[in-house]
Parts: sequence; C-alpha cells; structure tokens
Amino acid sequence: MTRDECTEAVLAAKLAKGLSWQQIADAVGRHVVWTTAALLGQASMDDAEATKAAEILGLGREVVQALQHCPTKGSIGEIVPTDPLIYRFYEVMQVYGSTLKEVIHEQFGDGIMSAIDFTMDVERVPDPGGDRVKVTMEGKFLPYKKW
Amino acid sequence: MTRDECTEAVLAAKLAKGLSWQQIADAVGRHVVWTTAALLGQASMDDAEATKAAEILGLGREVVQALQHCPTKGSIGEIVPTDPLIYRFYEVMQVYGSTLKEVIHEQFGDGIMSAIDFTMDVERVPDPGGDRVKVTMEGKFLPYKKW
Amino acid sequence: MTRDECTEAVLAAKLAKGLSWQQIADAVGRHVVWTTAALLGQASMDDAEATKAAEILGLGREVVQALQHCPTKGSIGEIVPTDPLIYRFYEVMQVYGSTLKEVIHEQFGDGIMSAIDFTMDVERVPDPGGDRVKVTMEGKFLPYKKW
Amino acid sequence: MTRDECTEAVLAAKLAKGLSWQQIADAVGRHVVWTTAALLGQASMDDAEATKAAEILGLGREVVQALQHCPTKGSIGEIVPTDPLIYRFYEVMQVYGSTLKEVIHEQFGDGIMSAIDFTMDVERVPDPGGDRVKVTMEGKFLPYKKW
Amino acid sequence: MTRDECTEAVLAAKLAKGLSWQQIADAVGRHVVWTTAALLGQASMDDAEATKAAEILGLGREVVQALQHCPTKGSIGEIVPTDPLIYRFYEVMQVYGSTLKEVIHEQFGDGIMSAIDFTMDVERVPDPGGDRVKVTMEGKFLPYKKW
Amino acid sequence: MTRDECTEAVLAAKLAKGLSWQQIADAVGRHVVWTTAALLGQASMDDAEATKAAEILGLGREVVQALQHCPTKGSIGEIVPTDPLIYRFYEVMQVYGSTLKEVIHEQFGDGIMSAIDFTMDVERVPDPGGDRVKVTMEGKFLPYKKW
Amino acid sequence: MTRDECTEAVLAAKLAKGLSWQQIADAVGRHVVWTTAALLGQASMDDAEATKAAEILGLGREVVQALQHCPTKGSIGEIVPTDPLIYRFYEVMQVYGSTLKEVIHEQFGDGIMSAIDFTMDVERVPDPGGDRVKVTMEGKFLPYKKW
Amino acid sequence: MTRDECTEAVLAAKLAKGLSWQQIADAVGRHVVWTTAALLGQASMDDAEATKAAEILGLGREVVQALQHCPTKGSIGEIVPTDPLIYRFYEVMQVYGSTLKEVIHEQFGDGIMSAIDFTMDVERVPDPGGDRVKVTMEGKFLPYKKW
Amino acid sequence: MTRDECTEAVLAAKLAKGLSWQQIADAVGRHVVWTTAALLGQASMDDAEATKAAEILGLGREVVQALQHCPTKGSIGEIVPTDPLIYRFYEVMQVYGSTLKEVIHEQFGDGIMSAIDFTMDVERVPDPGGDRVKVTMEGKFLPYKKW
Amino acid sequence: MTRDECTEAVLAAKLAKGLSWQQIADAVGRHVVWTTAALLGQASMDDAEATKAAEILGLGREVVQALQHCPTKGSIGEIVPTDPLIYRFYEVMQVYGSTLKEVIHEQFGDGIMSAIDFTMDVERVPDPGGDRVKVTMEGKFLPYKKW
Repeated sequence: MTRDECTEAVLAAKLAKGLSWQQIADAVGRHVVWTTAALLGQASMDDAEATKAAEILGLGREVVQALQHCPTKGSIGEIVPTDPLIYRFYEVMQVYGSTLKEVIHEQFGDGIMSAIDFTMDVERVPDPGGDRVKVTMEGKFLPYKKW
Repeated sequence: MTRDECTEAVLAAKLAKGLSWQQIADAVGRHVVWTTAALLGQASMDDAEATKAAEILGLGREVVQALQHCPTKGSIGEIVPTDPLIYRFYEVMQVYGSTLKEVIHEQFGDGIMSAIDFTMDVERVPDPGGDRVKVTMEGKFLPYKKW
Repeated sequence: MTRDECTEAVLAAKLAKGLSWQQIADAVGRHVVWTTAALLGQASMDDAEATKAAEILGLGREVVQALQHCPTKGSIGEIVPTDPLIYRFYEVMQVYGSTLKEVIHEQFGDGIMSAIDFTMDVERVPDPGGDRVKVTMEGKFLPYKKW
Repeated sequence: MTRDECTEAVLAAKLAKGLSWQQIADAVGRHVVWTTAALLGQASMDDAEATKAAEILGLGREVVQALQHCPTKGSIGEIVPTDPLIYRFYEVMQVYGSTLKEVIHEQFGDGIMSAIDFTMDVERVPDPGGDRVKVTMEGKFLPYKKW
Repeated sequence: MTRDECTEAVLAAKLAKGLSWQQIADAVGRHVVWTTAALLGQASMDDAEATKAAEILGLGREVVQALQHCPTKGSIGEIVPTDPLIYRFYEVMQVYGSTLKEVIHEQFGDGIMSAIDFTMDVERVPDPGGDRVKVTMEGKFLPYKKW
Repeated sequence: MTRDECTEAVLAAKLAKGLSWQQIADAVGRHVVWTTAALLGQASMDDAEATKAAEILGLGREVVQALQHCPTKGSIGEIVPTDPLIYRFYEVMQVYGSTLKEVIHEQFGDGIMSAIDFTMDVERVPDPGGDRVKVTMEGKFLPYKKW
Repeated sequence: MTRDECTEAVLAAKLAKGLSWQQIADAVGRHVVWTTAALLGQASMDDAEATKAAEILGLGREVVQALQHCPTKGSIGEIVPTDPLIYRFYEVMQVYGSTLKEVIHEQFGDGIMSAIDFTMDVERVPDPGGDRVKVTMEGKFLPYKKW
Repeated sequence: MTRDECTEAVLAAKLAKGLSWQQIADAVGRHVVWTTAALLGQASMDDAEATKAAEILGLGREVVQALQHCPTKGSIGEIVPTDPLIYRFYEVMQVYGSTLKEVIHEQFGDGIMSAIDFTMDVERVPDPGGDRVKVTMEGKFLPYKKW
Repeated sequence: MTRDECTEAVLAAKLAKGLSWQQIADAVGRHVVWTTAALLGQASMDDAEATKAAEILGLGREVVQALQHCPTKGSIGEIVPTDPLIYRFYEVMQVYGSTLKEVIHEQFGDGIMSAIDFTMDVERVPDPGGDRVKVTMEGKFLPYKKW
Repeated sequence: MTRDECTEAVLAAKLAKGLSWQQIADAVGRHVVWTTAALLGQASMDDAEATKAAEILGLGREVVQALQHCPTKGSIGEIVPTDPLIYRFYEVMQVYGSTLKEVIHEQFGDGIMSAIDFTMDVERVPDPGGDRVKVTMEGKFLPYKKW
C-alpha cells in the first residue's frame, strides 16, 4: 500500500463512517490540525497513533504501517494553488512576505521561523460582523549560524 | 514619484534616522505589521497616516501623496520565493494547504478565510528551548454565495 | 466516489438523458451558472439540491453525497488556458486588468471585488450585427482592513 | 516618446492635476473604462480623442501622437497576477472557466465571446450588506466557421 | 465515450481501413483541414457530418454523438511544442510576430485577425528546388470596438 | 550601436517622417513583410538594402552597419504572447497544430515546412461581411534525412 | 497500437532477446543512431526497414505498421532534462549557444544548421587519459530567404 | 569593469576594427570556437591569452583583467532559446536525447560525455546539394563512480 | 519490467521484510548511499550486486536485470522540490551557489566539481545541542579544457 | 547604498586590491565560506565583522552599515542554474534527493537537516587521479514536532 492509496482509504472510510477530523483526532489523542495533516500524508504517526487512527476508521494493518512512513510532503500538486481557500495563504505570502521578513528580523535578528519545529491551530472567532478564521502558526526562531 | 521610488525613499530615510518599524508604527498610530506593509507598498494610508509617517521619516509631500495611492500588490517578485524566511510560509502552504482546507471546511462549511478583511500579528514567545515566532492571521470567513 | 468520478457520472448521465444545464438547474431550483459550476465540481450543494440534481440525472446516493463535498476548485488544469472560449477571459484580465484596478479603486477605494460573495450571469443579447454574449459578474466590495 | 513613457506621463499629469479617470473620460467623450484602458496603453485613440485627452492633462503633441499608436497589449507583466484585485478575475476564470464554456455553448453553440468586439462596464451597486462591484462584459458571439 | 476516446477510435479506424484524411473529408463534404481538425477534437460537427464521418470509418452512434460535442480545444499538450513540424509555426510567431502586428495594423488599423471566423488551407507547390508547403490562413479582421 | 538601439532609432525616425512600412519597403526594393522584419531586428540586410533603408529614414552609417548584423531572433519577449493580435497565431498553432501535422505528413511524408527558406505575405481581402486578413506562409518542404 | 506502445514493445523485445542497438541497426541496414531514434519514436521507417526491425525483434505486423507512422517527436518529456547524460547537451547549448551563432554566421552568413536534413554519429575515441565520446552533427546550411 | 561590460567592449571593438573571430583566434593562438566562447564570457583566458586578445582589439588592462575572471556561464538568457540557429541545438537534444543516451550507454556503459573536458569544432563541408555545417563535440567519457 | 516497476517492487519487498537500507547495502557490499540510489533508480548495478540485492529482498531475475539497466536519472519529479528535507538542498544551492562558485574557483581555477566521479556520505554527528546531519560530497575537480 | 550596490563595491575593491576571499576571511576572523557568503549578500555581519571587512577592502561606513543588513537571500537569479559549477549541486539534489530523504529518515526519523543552523566547508583533497573537491555540509537535525 502506497502512501497515496493509504490517504484514499482514509478519506473513503471517514466518509463512510461519517466521522469528523476532530473525532479522529480525539481518538488519536492529538490536535486536529496535526492529525489531519498526518492522515493526508504530510506527517508520520508512531505505531500507537496509527493503530488508534486505523481503529476508529475501521482500517487494517497496512494502513497502520503506511501511516508510520515518512511521507514525501507537498499537498497541493501545483506551484501556485488554484483552490481559493488555499490560494489566500499564497496571497498572504505574496503581499505580506516582505513585511514578515522586516518585522521578524527586527524582533529576532537574522534567521527564520522554523516550519518543522512548528505548530498550527485553526480557531473560529465569533464576530457580530461575521465569524472569523484565526490561524496561529508558531515556530521556533532559528538564528543563522556563523562559522 | 512612483510607488517603488517611494519605498526606496522610506527605506533610506529609516536607515539614515536609525528608526525601527515599531517606532514608525507608534508615530502613525497603527500596528507595526500593517504599517510596515503600507510603507513597503502593500497597503494604502490615508492622509493623516501618511503625513505622520512622512514626518517621522523626514520626507516630503510627494511621499505623503504616494503613500495614499492604492499600490499594485505582490512584494517578492518571484513565484516561489528563494529567501528562506519567506519560503517557510510557502512551505507551510504547500505542506499544510490541504489540511487547512479540510479543517476550515469542517468548522465553517464551504468558503474561505478573507485575505482582505484580515489582520496579522507577529509576536515573540519566550521559550527555554529557544524563543518562538508566533504569527497570527485572522480573516473573516466568507461563505460561498449561491444564486 | 471521488469528486472527479462524480463529475464524469454527471456528464455521462446528462448526455444519455439529453438534458440541458438549464433543465437541471430548473429541477434544482438554482441559477444555471451556479448549478453548472456545482455539477462540474466548483461549488458544493446542500442535501436537498444534490438530491434533486441526482434525481433528474437518474443517479444514486453516492452522487448525492459527493455533490455536498467542498471540492478542490480550479476547473481548467492549465495556468494559461488553451481553449479559445476560456482564453478570452484570460485575455480580458491581461488587457483590462490594470484598468479594472484603476476604475474600481476610483469608485470604491483600496480593496477588491469578492470572488466568493459573488454571482455571475450569462445572457444572450439579440443584436442585428450578431447576437452578443453578456457576462455579468457581481461581487461584494471588500475594503482592505487596517489594524 | 515610447508608449510606456506616454503612460507614465499621463499618470504623472493626472496625479499632478488631481483629475479622476471619470473626468478625463468626460473630456474625451468616451466611457471611463475604455478611456482608462486607452490611457494605460491597452487601446488606441483617434486624433480627436487623443487631443482632448492631452488637453485636459496638459500634455503635448508627443502624447497626442503616442496615444494613436496601436499598443502592444497586456497590462500586468505577469502570467498569474499577484495583485489581489486583479487576481480575483484570474480566479473567476480558473473556477468558472469550464462553467462559462458549458453555458455559452448551450446558449450559442460552438464559438466564443469576442474580446475585441467587446465592451465592459464597472458599476457600484448599493447594498445594505455592503456595496457590490458589478462588472458587465459584453462581446459579440463569434461562431466557429466551417469550411 | 469521452472526446479523447473518440479521437483514439477515429485514429484506429482510419489506420485499420487505410483511409486518408482527404478521403474522409470527401465523404464528409468538407475541406480536409477542417475535417481533420474536427476529427482530432478541435472543432464540432453537426449530425449529418458526424454521421458521414462515422460511416466511412465504420464507427457507431457513440462516435456520432461525441463528434457533435464542443470540445475543449488545444491540440498539443505543451506550452512550447517539441515536435519540429509544429514548432516551426511557433517559431514563425516568435520571429515574425511583431512584423505581423505592424503590417496588419498598417493595413487595417487597431484590431486582430480572427482565429474563429477563420479558414486555413495547406497546399503543395511544385518547385524545381524542392516542393514547397503553402499554408494560407484567412480570418475576418475584427476592429477593436470603442465605447 | 546595438541591434535594439538600431530598432528604436528606426521606429523613431519612421514616426517622425510619417513613413509607412510599405513606403520603406518600396525604397528598399523588398516585400513589406520581409522589410519590416529586417527593420525590427529579425532578419539581416545586405549593404545596398541597409543603405536605402537608412537613406529614406534619414539615419546614418551606424544604422547601416547594424542592419547588416545577423540578429538574435525572437521578437516578442514572452513564451505565450499577451498581445491579442500576436496571440491569435499562438492559438492557431495550439488548436490546429496536430491538424497541420497530419495534413502535411499526408501530402509530403515525414518532414517539416522550413521557417528559414520561407516567405510570408499579408493581404487584405475585401468581403461584404467584413474584410479579411489573409496570411500566406510558404516554406520549402524538408524531408527528414535517413542515414 | 499507439507509437508509445510500439516503443515499449521494442524495448521489451530487445531486452528479452539480448540484442544491441548496433545489431538491430545492422539488420535494418541503417546507422545505429538513426535506427535507435526511429525505434524510440523519433523518426519513421519505410516498410522494408520496419519489416526487418520487427523480424529481428520477433514482433508482428502492428509494430511494422506503427514504425512507419510519422511520430510526434520530442523524446524527453521535460523542458530542461534532469538526466545528467542528456543534460550535458542542454548545457552545451546554454554555454556555447552564442558561440555557435557567431561562428556559424561568420562562416556561412545569416541562416541555420538544419536539424532535419541532418545526420549524427557517436564514436568512441581511445585516449590514454580516458576514452572520449565524439558526437558529430552535420546539417545542411539553410540561408535565410529574402523576398 | 564587469564581465558583461567586457563582452560589450569586445563586440564594439571587433565591429569597429572589422575583425573576424578567426582573426582574433589566430592572434590569441587558440581555436576559433574556444576563443569566441571566452570573449563572449563563457570561458576564462590566462594572462597571455587575454593580453593578446586585448591587443588586437585595441583594448586596455581592464579588459585583460576581466577576461581572466571565471565567468558565470550561460549565454542565452532563456530556458528554451527563441533564436532559430540556437534552437536547432535544443531541438537536437529534444529529439535525439534518448537516442544519445541509449547509444552512448551501449558503447561506454553508465556515465556521461563531459561538457567540461570538452572540445567543439565547426566546419563547412562543401556539398553540391548545399554546403553543410559540421559540428563536432568531443568530451571525455566519465563513468559513474560506485562507492 | 520497467525501471519504475522495479523500484516499486524493491520498496514493497523492503517494507514487507522489514529491512533497512543499511542492511541491504551490507548484503550488496556497497555504501548505503550508493546502494539506496541504485535501488531507487539513480545508478546501475553490475550483475553480482544486483543478484545480492535481489536475493536479500527475495526478488527474481527480472529485478536483477532491471537493476543493471542505466536508468533515466532525476528522482524528484519537480523542478523545485516541495518536500522540506529535499528542499533544504535546493535552498543551499540557491543561497550558497555563488559562494561555492567563488571559493572553488579560488582554490582550483576555472572548472567544476564532478557529480559523476562523485561520492557522498551521510553521517550522524552527536551534539549536546541536538545531533547533526553531516553530508559529505566529494567529486573530482574537472578543469575546463582549452583548445 | 543598497545591498546589491554593496556587493558590487566589495567585488570591485577585492579585484582592485588583489585580495583573495581567504585573505578577507582571515581579516574578518571567520571561515572563508561564511565570509564569502556574507560579502555576496547571503548572510549578515555584526558591526565588528563588517568593520574589519570594510577596512581590508578599503571601503567606508556605508558598506559597514549595509553588511549588517539582513539580506534577501537567493544568489543565482534563476530557478535552474545555467552555470555548470552551480548546476552540479542542482544535479546532486535531482539525482540523489530521494536517496538523501531515505537515508536521513532511516538514521534520524522524520525531520530535516537545517539549512540555517548549518555550516559548510570546501576543501581540496589531493588525489593522484586528479585532486578532488570536498564539500561538507553539516546542519542540525530538526525532528518534526507533533502537537
């Protein structure tokens, strides 16, 4: 079973069982964002996590095994995404990229925000003018090493 | 004075005066992220904001005028950014794009997070294992209209 | 059933039954443009709409379910379309893009026309010199938020 | 004077004189969308139009001459635009391209909407939920010739 | 039967029956260039034409139906073609594109040669120095509309 | 004087003298298409031709010399042209490329139409339904050599 | 049998029979470079050549027929090749392209080396410092035609 | 003096003095292909070579110095060249790339032809059917190392 | 069996048998980096190596044969890799490419580091601040040949 | 003084003074690879380092200031480099990318080699068969964080 076949099996089982990502995450014992990423082939689970995920989805050992593989990451198959929801994150990077660079360097010096030692959260913020999506990214600051 | 010449003038004056983005933002009375974006040609100021920005930077009416123009946005001049700090945001979109899509749709239904009715913050989170960069994006959820 | 398989099933059933998009839209109770977009995998239906669409097409529960999924949008699979009908809309954007930017900013200030809170109509305008295609796009103006 | 230098001269004069596109269009006696396109180097004026445009802008014969040249069209200098206002029109083409193809073919048969025998209008539609941008494109239907 | 499957069926039948494009065109009653384009999925036939084409190729109703569909056009699947015969037409556009622009504008004013209200012919011109390929393209001149 | 500077000088002189490409071609004693191509930097003149061209344009020895240089060809600076007039020739190649391949191979066997041993003509064909642009390309057929 | 299926059949038969390209070329009576190109779908054989090739490979009439088809050429499926052996030829074109242009124009005038009326040879040149690959390309010089 | 300025100076001096590449190569004491490549910024000369080149061109010490710099190579500024002479070498790589791979591997095993330990020659081969361009590339075979 | 099918068979067998790349490399008698590259279709084995690899993986003669084929190299199927581990090597090339050029030329003169006569090692370097990945690349210096 | 102007000033001064990168690095007190990267605009110096660098190069305060700026990184201005020395590192990533992924994951688990907490060395390894370039990259292993 390849990682792509595993993702398809997960999506089909989730639909058939009527599960939400949140329910699966609760069963796995991890945050919904990370759990979804892992099940979509963008992170690797350990044996206990994979076993719990397969269990709630009613899937077998092959899936348990595949979920522990370090996947080749990159979830959208396009250089510039066409899906409007995903594109908005590309747009943020295009419009605010130089700003993020200036502000992070001002606060931290030369270096980057890690996308590996990194967590992300998605929250719904109630608002009378229309609820808002709040995405929080937090990554370790990695200063450039000199040698 | 074109918007690009304005940006160059701002950067030169900021360097010459030894100002931080935070100091300029305080003078303008806006958040440092938005102020930086506006000065880098990614947002437009009103007359009062532009006047205060020009004042602290010691720049003239031409700059005040240019800062009120609606700029052609897109700050990085490349489809995939090569600068490592900016690239990490591209990487987040590549790796977590499908996850953001699934989780936001699960919480909100079909629609997107606006990148226009949108705010962003950058904070330094102290951490014994190394301080962390926390980037918070918050945009209004826009449900797809049916007709 | 993936969303692509669903689209193929819809197209095959439409052809076999000799239905027009307008007839399907009437059965669904929605505008023909939106209904066509939804059936081509660019919008999501609710249960009632999907049930009516499946009914007139003679398709089953799997299709009803798939039509309610939030699809990954982007209908043409190319960065610059080669089909001449679709290309003309790319050309309008290339030739008149800067004009739309100037005129919309002049009328509304800094911001955009939403492509989400958005409707579109296609009409045939009789004309002795040859009938004309009238495409009306209407989207909410979203002013850039300052913070 | 090249066409690009002409565009720069027009923009500088418009800013210096504090003119709106609508005022210039009124002076020229043409629609604001077409007039703006022509002044931005996407359409060519005749001598009378160019003379009136130059007059209100306070520009000379060189501009009058340049505005009559058939320009090399394409206003955005990028394959996929990064400016959010212009990108939304790219997004409409990406998301609704196959829909436009189906609906126009259903109404008209095989052919295209001309982008040459074409007019466009931009209107502000008042709306209690937020005013809306209405863009109307109207082009002659051109049926594919057989031979 | 999709349009691509239809094209494959046509090519296989043509090869099996040993027919030339000219023979099929004669049976259809159309020019060989147009007939070939239609059979390769770049134009749509009416019922009578499709019936005659299917008849001489020994194919059934599904093909007759598919040949009447308005196809998604674009025959080469590459942005810059690698096949040398097709590339030469790309080269002509690259090398002589600005010349065609100047000469057509000089003769006709601002506008284009239509590629829709358009015919094309290919002829063999005997020549002692080696026979020559003569490709004649004729399209209606479409002047840019002003409004 | 580089070839690009030469082209600019030619265009400025042509405009200043109010000459048409046809008039310059008559002075040079060559076809208007070839003459235009040569003056736009896509072909090289001999000394006599360059001298006559420079004479009617009122330009000096540097231009005469530059016009004899073998230029680096490619007139449009883009992979897919955005100018609508030039794009239509790209569209013809995209839509009819596979047809040209089939029909030319049927008439000539394996090989290509030369774009070097090649001539092109542009004519205005009067037509009550609107005059037509007739572009005739004629190139030597080059059969693939076997060895 | 498509041309691609034919190429696969040839490669499988060659491997199964343990034949070299040279042995097949000897059977066909053509140079090994041309024979290999033809069998890889980059040139077309006549009936006698195809019959001999199919015979030594133990393949049937379908292959004989397919090998006579004028193939859509382009053997590498990438714009810039990633295979190091093939890339070196891309590198030669990148590094020495302007040199080839200057030197060929100096020796021959304005024109090109034909890649159609063209032969190529690959030889092993013994050398004490390591044997060398000698690739000889020879193409007819085609002078640009004037008209 | 940058390497690009050096190249421009060389080209201007060559034109002004009416020198051929062959004459300069003779003065330098190197092959015309290598000398041209070096002067066009694709190879580096030693002091003696650079001095002789500068001398015949009538250029100074700055040029002598610049010609000894290891240049950033890549002479055509485009991924796929548009100039027809240079494109033919791209076409050879596209059409015959897989053939070169098969034939060189058959003769030498796994490895490549070096483009560094490499020489190239261009010759004019008289031919009653039209003289031919003969390009000979010879590079050391580099076998893949195992470890 | 194609090379891609061979790679899939190897990966499936490795997973099923629970083997590490190191264990397979030990069986083959080669370095783990080279062995992995060869099994992933980026290098070719000799008969003895392929036999040992197939043996430990429990695979048959077809695999032994396929592993001896010179593969078409290029392991990532993207121009810019999206997988973060692989991307970091692209980033090193982007950020330090000009530095490598300067430093290698300073130490060696004009030429390159061979990627063919080349070995690579990956080691784990224990470090109290977090273990480090050490990648050592060693390639023969190839000086540019003059002629 | 922009960062690009600073780089140009550094290169000109280095050439004029006949300094090697090693000599400048010794003056700065840093490794030659890091020092070169910093001077080429790919890393930022502190005040002491910048002062020492400017001093040995004979440059002023503006350079000292510019060298402390966090530069926008990316040194080669192309997606796929054309310079052969730099390209070989792209080739290593293309050919050995999947191998590096497998081997590093086998030794370390899911994560990456940091390109920020990273050092690089270039050494000359004497070898009777030709000296070798040894490039050592060492980056902290960053395990993917779960949450």
